[in-house]
Amino acid sequence: MKQIKIGLIGFGTVGAGLVETLQKNGDLIAKRSGILPVISKIADLDTTSDRGVLVPPGVLGTDAMALIDSPEVDVVVELVGGITAARKFVATALKRGKPVVTANKALLATYGDELFALARENRTEIYFEASVGGGIPCIKALREGLIGNRITEIYGILNGTCNYILSCMETDNTDFQVVLKAAQKAGYAEANPSMDVDGLDTAHKAALLASLVYGKWFTASDVDVQGIREVTLNDIHYAASLGYRIKLLAAIKEIDGSIQLSVHPSLIPETSLLGHVNGVFNAVWVRGDVVGTTMYYGRGAGREATSSAVVADVVDIGLNLLGKCSNRLPAFPVFDEYKGLISAAEVVSRYYLRLQVADRPGMLAIISGILGRNQISIASVTQKEEGSQQAAVPMVILTHKAKVAAMNKAIEEISRDECIHAAPVVFRIEDLG
Amino acid sequence: MKQIKIGLIGFGTVGAGLVETLQKNGDLIAKRSGILPVISKIADLDTTSDRGVLVPPGVLGTDAMALIDSPEVDVVVELVGGITAARKFVATALKRGKPVVTANKALLATYGDELFALARENRTEIYFEASVGGGIPCIKALREGLIGNRITEIYGILNGTCNYILSCMETDNTDFQVVLKAAQKAGYAEANPSMDVDGLDTAHKAALLASLVYGKWFTASDVDVQGIREVTLNDIHYAASLGYRIKLLAAIKEIDGSIQLSVHPSLIPETSLLGHVNGVFNAVWVRGDVVGTTMYYGRGAGREATSSAVVADVVDIGLNLLGKCSNRLPAFPVFDEYKGLISAAEVVSRYYLRLQVADRPGMLAIISGILGRNQISIASVTQKEEGSQQAAVPMVILTHKAKVAAMNKAIEEISRDECIHAAPVVFRIEDLG
Repeated sequence: MKQIKIGLIGFGTVGAGLVETLQKNGDLIAKRSGILPVISKIADLDTTSDRGVLVPPGVLGTDAMALIDSPEVDVVVELVGGITAARKFVATALKRGKPVVTANKALLATYGDELFALARENRTEIYFEASVGGGIPCIKALREGLIGNRITEIYGILNGTCNYILSCMETDNTDFQVVLKAAQKAGYAEANPSMDVDGLDTAHKAALLASLVYGKWFTASDVDVQGIREVTLNDIHYAASLGYRIKLLAAIKEIDGSIQLSVHPSLIPETSLLGHVNGVFNAVWVRGDVVGTTMYYGRGAGREATSSAVVADVVDIGLNLLGKCSNRLPAFPVFDEYKGLISAAEVVSRYYLRLQVADRPGMLAIISGILGRNQISIASVTQKEEGSQQAAVPMVILTHKAKVAAMNKAIEEISRDECIHAAPVVFRIEDLG
Repeated sequence: MKQIKIGLIGFGTVGAGLVETLQKNGDLIAKRSGILPVISKIADLDTTSDRGVLVPPGVLGTDAMALIDSPEVDVVVELVGGITAARKFVATALKRGKPVVTANKALLATYGDELFALARENRTEIYFEASVGGGIPCIKALREGLIGNRITEIYGILNGTCNYILSCMETDNTDFQVVLKAAQKAGYAEANPSMDVDGLDTAHKAALLASLVYGKWFTASDVDVQGIREVTLNDIHYAASLGYRIKLLAAIKEIDGSIQLSVHPSLIPETSLLGHVNGVFNAVWVRGDVVGTTMYYGRGAGREATSSAVVADVVDIGLNLLGKCSNRLPAFPVFDEYKGLISAAEVVSRYYLRLQVADRPGMLAIISGILGRNQISIASVTQKEEGSQQAAVPMVILTHKAKVAAMNKAIEEISRDECIHAAPVVFRIEDLG
């Protein structure tokens, strides 16, 4: 049995969860793996707040750089968040040849190429299971369990806040703004919810997953992103009446050797397993050319779930240190199997289109004419009656497949028509077929 | 880049799938992992059948023992099936210090303690991802991804044949026997379907999962097993009307340090994610004390899915060989964290009880009296009308929690009553709460 000494930088919610998990299950982990992970040093600017866990005297300090250099630290766990200080800490640890565990998707999606190169140069490693899907061992599944597969599609529900909001809108029959406020009150959404509801957090995670499986470096700026602010309660009802549920979905696809990377509110069949992933839970749906469809489900965030993933990474590193086989599995090997990114405009998709049209004859002819001239074929139309007093009524159109460029052009033309009373809303449809 | 030379014993469906997968994706695997797995030798008694894949001359022979001893073989992949010859091949390979990959759950659930001891003694290893859940990397998730967790519950849909039959009964509104015949014709069920429909295959897998997470050796004989032959189309309808779906479910639970191991047709909430796992798909639902609920989903059998798991195991072994860290992660470490098995009679569960009762007054008083005297409390009763000509009508009772022993005693008393026209049928209810 070998002790692995952890230097923890960042003693916030997840850091405290890690300390608690090791205190509770350290012995069991040692029995299973031969590795006993122990917290040797903790660095945090705040050394006085009560985190609900006890650490021995002398463990908690403020100097992260001293922690990294300490001979009492075998592995550095970075739970600081943000990308400036975290980048410095992670880079320094790697330069010292010390392996790093991080849950920081923003850091990796921004500086991953630099950091993984540093890990390679210094013959050490970065583990990052907690960075996508929280406690779900989905990075391990993709890197190791599905290593024999060409990954053709990944669909991810990767942001618990968005999934919680969309689920609550449906179950409580409540509008976005009301649910968002309740989620903020309950601690499921930040005071500034933009990273979550505008889709950037999901885009970070999508970029990481794509980099991992396609051997090219993608960043969040490679991802075509649309958040969930435009999703109304009516959209959820319309989708349900058509047999779909609306999720904020990361779609990562390989199409003829090129890669699609997008994050959009998407209609997915209510008969699909992914359609039943509700509340704060995350799920990663993966199609491999050999294994077929697989899915990984669990809590995407939170003190306990995240610490479960961090502990698994620490043990993996511990086993590598014990077996003297650091960098056993190359992290982010770069290979040129794929041609690169499909530009957002060239992506092909089906669409859900919601319009507010004047309540008078001939409207469908106008809309379908515009769509037709842009080579967009209609799969279904529903015109909603909302009382005869309304000057405009909602029209919901599901299309067959078309390029984003064609849809954008059609939307531009439709928007110019005086019979259209509000900005058209467009979501994606993913049939997971 | 290092070649890992595979000696494949058993060139059947999965063996051919493995050869095909390596031919198709070998280069990609090498780019990702630095390991190029190649088929060096194949042993099978049948050297003439066309498997739809080409192997170079000199690779295919009949002598498995010579294959094991060949210096051209780094890792032995056992895909023979059965437990007699397979045991000999695996044991011999391990004695020679050669790592083994197997998909053989019956072998491991029967001789696992002996084989894993051999692996330890000879400082080599057995990988067995394909033995449970086919292509789903669920063994890896449990052994590695969730290593920081005390596993409190596992619910598994682990037999694709049973899940296919139950799904078809529901979607096609067809009886068990009709669906079974169609499944046999389609190749989803064996000519002798007993291993599947009587639950033994699921029991093998349940024993393996339990051994893995609880550090004690369990065999299929430790599992309380009930197959799906008693499940009628009416049961599926009754369950649906009560908000449940019926699945053949492996239930593995730790209760106050003791282990419950059971396989039963079980009612699970139709709102649960597991309730939406249909057709030939498998899923493993796991609750850890740190991570909370997670689930792993995919194809549980078949040429491609199984070979995906075998390839992942070969690469894991290859990385260990390359890194000179064999036995990096101890397989089946034995530890005495848990007290042992809960006897079948002592298990506590909720029950679904279907009776054929005489169509006359006072029947519910008799039944509820018997249940009450055995300390079994009723949660709901539905008496079905099936036309006035019937001498007996179905009565469906859902109970609250009670011991199996109490339920068995109540059933015995109920069966003796002259008003009961057929053997009572009892399934479990698992609320996954």
